Amino acid sequence: MSELSKTVARTLAESRVDSLGADASREAHRALVNYMGVALGGADHEAMDIVLRALGGFSGPGAAAVIGRRETVDVPFAGLLNGISSHIHDFDDTTPSNYIHPTSPVASALFAWAAANEVSGPAFLHAFALGFDIVTRIGDATYPAHYRAGWHSTGSIGIFGAAVAIGRLLELGEQQMLWAIGLAATQASGLRDNFGSMAKGFHPGHAARCGIEAALMARAGFTTGATPLEGPRGFAAVTAGGQFDRATFEDGFGTSYRFEGNTYKPYPCGIVIHPTIEICSEIHHEGTDPDAVDRVECRVAPLVRDLCDQHPTSGLQGKFSIYHAAAIGLVRGQGRLSEFTDAAVADPAISAMRDRVNAVADESVSEDSVRVIVTLKDGSTVEKFLGASLGNLERPLSDAQLEDKFLNQITAIGGDQAKEILEQCWKIGTLDDIGDLVRSTVPR
Amino acid sequence: MSELSKTVARTLAESRVDSLGADASREAHRALVNYMGVALGGADHEAMDIVLRALGGFSGPGAAAVIGRRETVDVPFAGLLNGISSHIHDFDDTTPSNYIHPTSPVASALFAWAAANEVSGPAFLHAFALGFDIVTRIGDATYPAHYRAGWHSTGSIGIFGAAVAIGRLLELGEQQMLWAIGLAATQASGLRDNFGSMAKGFHPGHAARCGIEAALMARAGFTTGATPLEGPRGFAAVTAGGQFDRATFEDGFGTSYRFEGNTYKPYPCGIVIHPTIEICSEIHHEGTDPDAVDRVECRVAPLVRDLCDQHPTSGLQGKFSIYHAAAIGLVRGQGRLSEFTDAAVADPAISAMRDRVNAVADESVSEDSVRVIVTLKDGSTVEKFLGASLGNLERPLSDAQLEDKFLNQITAIGGDQAKEILEQCWKIGTLDDIGDLVRSTVPR
Repeated sequence: MSELSKTVARTLAESRVDSLGADASREAHRALVNYMGVALGGADHEAMDIVLRALGGFSGPGAAAVIGRRETVDVPFAGLLNGISSHIHDFDDTTPSNYIHPTSPVASALFAWAAANEVSGPAFLHAFALGFDIVTRIGDATYPAHYRAGWHSTGSIGIFGAAVAIGRLLELGEQQMLWAIGLAATQASGLRDNFGSMAKGFHPGHAARCGIEAALMARAGFTTGATPLEGPRGFAAVTAGGQFDRATFEDGFGTSYRFEGNTYKPYPCGIVIHPTIEICSEIHHEGTDPDAVDRVECRVAPLVRDLCDQHPTSGLQGKFSIYHAAAIGLVRGQGRLSEFTDAAVADPAISAMRDRVNAVADESVSEDSVRVIVTLKDGSTVEKFLGASLGNLERPLSDAQLEDKFLNQITAIGGDQAKEILEQCWKIGTLDDIGDLVRSTVPR
Repeated sequence: MSELSKTVARTLAESRVDSLGADASREAHRALVNYMGVALGGADHEAMDIVLRALGGFSGPGAAAVIGRRETVDVPFAGLLNGISSHIHDFDDTTPSNYIHPTSPVASALFAWAAANEVSGPAFLHAFALGFDIVTRIGDATYPAHYRAGWHSTGSIGIFGAAVAIGRLLELGEQQMLWAIGLAATQASGLRDNFGSMAKGFHPGHAARCGIEAALMARAGFTTGATPLEGPRGFAAVTAGGQFDRATFEDGFGTSYRFEGNTYKPYPCGIVIHPTIEICSEIHHEGTDPDAVDRVECRVAPLVRDLCDQHPTSGLQGKFSIYHAAAIGLVRGQGRLSEFTDAAVADPAISAMRDRVNAVADESVSEDSVRVIVTLKDGSTVEKFLGASLGNLERPLSDAQLEDKFLNQITAIGGDQAKEILEQCWKIGTLDDIGDLVRSTVPR
């Protein structure tokens, strides 16, 4: 692993703005459309108000608009807020190869920066692609060790993407880019103990803010160690038990962007319970009466049970509950934002159904599959298997489905305004000034 | 480990301001005297100017004075700056049981807070004691696993002390204190890859800033997981391979403060090379001519070689070089701030001596000892062994030595001003408003 960080920094510093091919550009646009929808969807979440109440007084001069909010704040704080809004509903994109939500930390930093500094569409898209790509590559190279250790890698790896993306807009040279990576590595954080709480949404926001600051400090000459990724006390050694698959990392690095493995969620919750929601909703729509259900068995991959074993008392916890997933499907036949509120979790019909659900870890079931066996009170059973749920790499959301998702989740602004923003998002790569787009999201 | 975090939060929330005994109060004052000296000593370091240049524009309204600086900034940013100044010279205190520098992250947050909010001496001292104590207990409970994994625990554990200390001043209840601990855990970071660079000094500053914000967010109701310390994806599991010696943590928790294991450095560098500086200086003062030295062998504990194997090209790297430690002792007979500048590292006489030094890991030598064998060009040898260097728990700096250290390192302000500050620091526990003390450190 000699000089890995140095080589990475040089490649990033030398990357050309015209290096994005048509396929990557198209998927980058889909990622940004999805991002803007979820950021607007979460912009009026209570967690946003809490952070503004707690820390808003420390904001520097308000140069940056925040997506979907009326406040203007300093750039790093805008990055924090954009990161929280875009992840708080757990509705953002996912790369199943490493379970990272890569766009939130990167785009949150970039939109915050662009809100206060003129950034053209092509420069924005290129910086986003570099940030997304480095997150995905570090994620792939350290998966599963880093994630299994208990890191919420959307934060702990996402920070590299934020630092690199902003570093690129600052036109950092090799040494400065290396320091930016070093400052990202040394602020990398985020524990999975927080799944089901507001702190999960905080992680990509913190990554965005710290990534912005890492790039700025690096530009100013703040020094770090020379081997932040590969050193014996560097990121891979300390957080991934030394796992860093260099071949996986380097495959196509500098010549291609790893967008092809990205997916978009149809349900606002942990991705591994999507199959359960879909199949239980299907059982509901085929006519199974919730009151007739005696018990439910969900056979899932061990990771799914490990991740989503929560017996929820809040909407945020419901997003990581295999029991809640089955219950909302069987009782309501759907899994929208309305099924992940505190009220939905407390709904007696859903709560009673959750108590009837059992989850069994089954090595023969893949992480994007589920086998559901519903036993009715009359002793009969309904059994269904789903190999890959909607939104999966094999069944990607179409552009039209992405647009429906975008428009259906937004409450912070009106529908007409949302449609105008959506239209602009599809053209991000050609806009003159991304700041105009950010400012257009402020509620009218 | 059932309900560890909850129990800790409750104990902290219920702690009484008059719970500090005379011995703990005395050592807390010594720690704060030492802290103020190193913060003033580092206040005009280049790293401070760099951070202000990079991030100063994002500071909110300047309510808080920064120790030893003319700028006033927002409270969390003041915490960051105080943390950098007090650790950048690696001259702050150390608890050898876990190699943490506990006062920097805690006191940096507290002085920043007190600079903008009225805090009495007793309340300040109590909050400091709680923060120092929790850092030391978490450090002891997770040592050596956490440190050996590569974490710079002054940052990654120091953040708990900052959050708890500020949380105490905010009078957080049990649930809020638990969230403050949760938000600290999920921002815990800092890699040892950065030893020898400015990023090492950044760590306690980042911990102070993030700790302040954790406490404020917790007060406002920002939720976290319920088991930040002990959960299967909590701090101990993720960062210390599951090591958390609960008996070590709990011994006396809530009734005593673990100040008795603190030490103060006579040399501004990694503590494990102190014995080498002292013994080589002794050899110098006993008349060994540097030009007569052919080669030097330092037999040290394996950890010492692991930590301080740097062949430095900067002053900051020199602080983690066993070779530089031996060289400055033999060539100059001392190890002051002037021996850890870029110029001292580049000094031809010192550089040449470094090249003649070899370090051998020796299991029979303890971490606070060294055996030095100097072979002269005439074939004769000088051999010396030091069991415990000055500043060690067995040979603590006296109050008078602490005062000399305080006054001798300060360049940001004049000597008379420094003496007045020193006098006030010995009385911190009785002052009416700690903010007056912070403001008195601004250069006249």
